Amino acid sequence: MRILGIDPGYAIVGFGILEAQRGQARLLRCGAINTQAGVPMPRRLLQIHEDLETLIKRFAPDVMAIEELFFNTNVTTGIGVAQARGVILMTAAQLGVTVYEYTPSQVKQAVVGYGKAEKRQVMDMTRRLLHLAAVPKPDDAADAVAIALCHARSHTSRLSRQ
Amino acid sequence: MRILGIDPGYAIVGFGILEAQRGQARLLRCGAINTQAGVPMPRRLLQIHEDLETLIKRFAPDVMAIEELFFNTNVTTGIGVAQARGVILMTAAQLGVTVYEYTPSQVKQAVVGYGKAEKRQVMDMTRRLLHLAAVPKPDDAADAVAIALCHARSHTSRLSRQ
Repeated sequence: MRILGIDPGYAIVGFGILEAQRGQARLLRCGAINTQAGVPMPRRLLQIHEDLETLIKRFAPDVMAIEELFFNTNVTTGIGVAQARGVILMTAAQLGVTVYEYTPSQVKQAVVGYGKAEKRQVMDMTRRLLHLAAVPKPDDAADAVAIALCHARSHTSRLSRQ
Repeated sequence: MRILGIDPGYAIVGFGILEAQRGQARLLRCGAINTQAGVPMPRRLLQIHEDLETLIKRFAPDVMAIEELFFNTNVTTGIGVAQARGVILMTAAQLGVTVYEYTPSQVKQAVVGYGKAEKRQVMDMTRRLLHLAAVPKPDDAADAVAIALCHARSHTSRLSRQ
């Protein structure tokens, strides 16, 4: 099973692609889609759509794994992230990729084995489980890889309804 | 100039299409895109994208006018609306339609002449200015028509950066 993990954003969309078989997962590619500040939002969202479409067509993932969105204090950033997340979900549907959602604590539980683990622990376990020399960069890519790994190791996912 | 006004949502997207010339505006079409509760969100967002694409190709608007998004107390609904709004902005960019944003008070100022007007007054003035027999239904369509009318009557718009 090929899993595309996504860390959504409007300036940076982190992505990580895993091949998972018989409990073993291998990192195929990770990175980030970057959009430029100062460009009108509709065009930034279009770039996210187009770059994600290219990525999905190239790597043909079976599923997308993405974090559920919660809003903290920065609501303005939250609106932008939610707008980008909408484009990402729509793109997945358009290309026939089923979307699974996980909460941050589900990711921590699946990767570290402890739902209140520190971010640093999640990154370190992600690196070890995938036999990587270093934690992926940027952070958005590392987060996306962790979400994909969560899907590979988890049976508590649910289909996206949010 | 042909203006597509949009009232964003994930269950109902209101739309209104005006032809505006020399200070006169005429309503060409209004209505709503409805998505079904219980369908996974990625598919609802895809339907919004596809229906909006059909609408834009059919009516060829020059611009899209849409309200700026503010979050009130219902943050969960807000996430869904923002996700749909992202898909709407992306679809506009994909089809070459420039997006303009207005605040609720800009809409009230442009339509009623008073930035703190009641919603009922906005609806009534929208009906009168467009020489309609009744306020458009559903409310989402009426709101979308008011936003389009705001663009037709306003010079205070700004390009979408949110």
